[in-house]
Amino acid sequence: MTQSVNIKRLATSDDGFDESLQKLLAWETVSDSRVEQVVDEILSAIRQRGDAALLEYTNRFDRRVATVISELEMTQQDFVQALDAISDTEREALQLAADRIRCYHEHQRQDSWNYREDDGTLLGQQVTPLDRVGIYVPGGKASYPSSVLMNAMPAKVAGVGEIIMVVPAPDGELNPLVLAAAAIAGVDRVFTVGGAQAVAALAYGTESVPKVDKIVGPGNIYVATAKRAVFGAVGLDMVAGPSEILVVCDGETDPDWIAMDLFSQAEHDEDAQAILVSPDSAFLDRVKSSMEQLLPTMERAGMIRAALENRSALIAVRDMDEALELINRIAPEHLELSVAEPEALLPRIRHAGAIFMGRYTAEALGDYCAGPNHVLPTSMTARFSSPLGVYDFQKRSSIIMCSAEAASRLGKTASTLARGESLTAHARSAEYRIQD
Amino acid sequence: MTQSVNIKRLATSDDGFDESLQKLLAWETVSDSRVEQVVDEILSAIRQRGDAALLEYTNRFDRRVATVISELEMTQQDFVQALDAISDTEREALQLAADRIRCYHEHQRQDSWNYREDDGTLLGQQVTPLDRVGIYVPGGKASYPSSVLMNAMPAKVAGVGEIIMVVPAPDGELNPLVLAAAAIAGVDRVFTVGGAQAVAALAYGTESVPKVDKIVGPGNIYVATAKRAVFGAVGLDMVAGPSEILVVCDGETDPDWIAMDLFSQAEHDEDAQAILVSPDSAFLDRVKSSMEQLLPTMERAGMIRAALENRSALIAVRDMDEALELINRIAPEHLELSVAEPEALLPRIRHAGAIFMGRYTAEALGDYCAGPNHVLPTSMTARFSSPLGVYDFQKRSSIIMCSAEAASRLGKTASTLARGESLTAHARSAEYRIQD
Repeated sequence: MTQSVNIKRLATSDDGFDESLQKLLAWETVSDSRVEQVVDEILSAIRQRGDAALLEYTNRFDRRVATVISELEMTQQDFVQALDAISDTEREALQLAADRIRCYHEHQRQDSWNYREDDGTLLGQQVTPLDRVGIYVPGGKASYPSSVLMNAMPAKVAGVGEIIMVVPAPDGELNPLVLAAAAIAGVDRVFTVGGAQAVAALAYGTESVPKVDKIVGPGNIYVATAKRAVFGAVGLDMVAGPSEILVVCDGETDPDWIAMDLFSQAEHDEDAQAILVSPDSAFLDRVKSSMEQLLPTMERAGMIRAALENRSALIAVRDMDEALELINRIAPEHLELSVAEPEALLPRIRHAGAIFMGRYTAEALGDYCAGPNHVLPTSMTARFSSPLGVYDFQKRSSIIMCSAEAASRLGKTASTLARGESLTAHARSAEYRIQD
Repeated sequence: MTQSVNIKRLATSDDGFDESLQKLLAWETVSDSRVEQVVDEILSAIRQRGDAALLEYTNRFDRRVATVISELEMTQQDFVQALDAISDTEREALQLAADRIRCYHEHQRQDSWNYREDDGTLLGQQVTPLDRVGIYVPGGKASYPSSVLMNAMPAKVAGVGEIIMVVPAPDGELNPLVLAAAAIAGVDRVFTVGGAQAVAALAYGTESVPKVDKIVGPGNIYVATAKRAVFGAVGLDMVAGPSEILVVCDGETDPDWIAMDLFSQAEHDEDAQAILVSPDSAFLDRVKSSMEQLLPTMERAGMIRAALENRSALIAVRDMDEALELINRIAPEHLELSVAEPEALLPRIRHAGAIFMGRYTAEALGDYCAGPNHVLPTSMTARFSSPLGVYDFQKRSSIIMCSAEAASRLGKTASTLARGESLTAHARSAEYRIQD
């Protein structure tokens, strides 16, 4: 049994290819003024009434019956129970993933540095971890333990003092894998609250929920809107668009493997984007056949079909040079180089969130346990941003200690430039340290 | 002749000190819906009509009479003329500042890294510069050559392919120091356009102005609103609040020096914040006397007085431990440690944009030529963010190349976790690479 799949078929040699590609890549989140108004109300209620408002919203939206916030906080015993509730295989998989993520992220830790100039002047940067971080974890169907690991582990490796997780538990239900992942990642406290009210509690603090310095983690439109609104009061991670994969294949990988790699992206969301690029046009046909054969066997066939027919494409290129141009133009979140010699292409890739190299490196390995982070820049933002990492949980302070000699010498330069900007108090502050 | 200065006087031993401090530090930018509407109109006009709209707005707002955008672009000859128009002293000061800024920032450049596991799996990150960056430079009175150097040099050191500067030239007038700084910093192209229309041109591109990947640099409320609105289409630097300094002094520095350091912050803006903390209460009196004597001699006395009487304070602490607590609570943009042994305090400072150590290191030296960046986190955002740096113009791509053996082994873990999340296409994509 096969099912036809209406995925777009493009070729760089087509008339109007540039416009077709641009249309395919277009994505804009439209802000919704009704959502903004609801979120504004929630933010100001939490800010003014703290725990009382957090309790009301949580009881209302998540159908809870708590009378104090402490009922919504998980205890050490809850952590232990969650670890017991999951299978040995699951616990070992979480632990292995956590270990590999930790090991990889330890390479990202940045150290303080400084240097002394000949006259004794000291210059450098002191690198410190954030004091306290909040991690938002969606509840219900989209509740992903892997997301807990990927958001919490870099903070842990950075040395963040305290990690506070919020996760809504609609009707009191919570995926034990999520709580187990929090325990394994070393999350300090977990509150079962969600939505804009959870974001507000983290950003402003309440009597029970401590104010954090940065909030990371994905969420629905209310969460995203609340995050945008509290920006400045706290730091934020990127706002993610729909997930995307660009697979570049030389035509020599098993087409079933490639079809399944595209499916694994498509099953996320009907707006997800899965693009296959190959110089071998017949191979594109073979992958399409594989898709048509495999689709009926997929649990999430409806979602996969929607994504494939909506924002996905099979693209024929003339050669690998054109494929590289496309990569840099698309700046994909996930890039799979399913080719014989991926390392040869690497130096020419300027923009991609994560690069999966060779026929064996399925993107799904990166989602869970290869080590690198799965929080990656979407919607072409890989042109200017990076995977979530330890660097997102560290910050730097410049260090300047001038010797008397340097202060005298540099004071003259500073004075000249400050006077050129008519900032004469700056000039005179520097001039006090001039010695001759 | 002296003038009394009504600066707040606080002590940590006061009843209600915490509330007083909180009130002093409070700062919120209020968004203005009228400004937002004007900016929205400008953004959509530039997006739809490109150069034509950019020309109209520039002619209208800056009283220009250009007929094509090329008339608004500076030429190589304009660069040369600007370098000739300034004095030798100014040119040398700019060059010395640029050299020191370059040298310091070269320490921030990050390199790609990777490691191989025993089974041959390759993991790492490839670090690349941004392709193209836009620098916004305010025109008119607030047109600062130092700001050109501080924004352009880190991009240059990062290896950014092209740096586009925009600076409005009201009535066609432009400070030659600004253009000279651009020439010295290695800015590639300069357009004399400003406001929301310049931000839109950089974010979306027009026929003449190339689309950039990130926009940095300060601007007025229209520029800041436009930057917020284009976020996502391009990357952004931080949105800056009013400038602040926290001076901690043991009481042994010349009070005139300290008064002038506080003035140099206060002259920026009537909302600027200058706070002096000392365990020596009599020293606070001496600094106040210095202020009252020096204020009448200041060119910007009105602004300085406004800032000192508005959001500034002299704070007595019991000891240096309390001073350190205050530092970490205030998380100042600029911190001056005017004490005998500043290096002993450094490890206990968790939050500060830049730390100026010792009696000789006037903050003004850091504004111009010490080497570190003067674009720093304000309004307590040093709790989670860093000075502008080379790292803001580099980005990272994760690298993953699994050996056949690793793909088989990790495939099992990924499969377990993916099935735990009901993402079965992910699971099956990984399972295809399991070999036994």
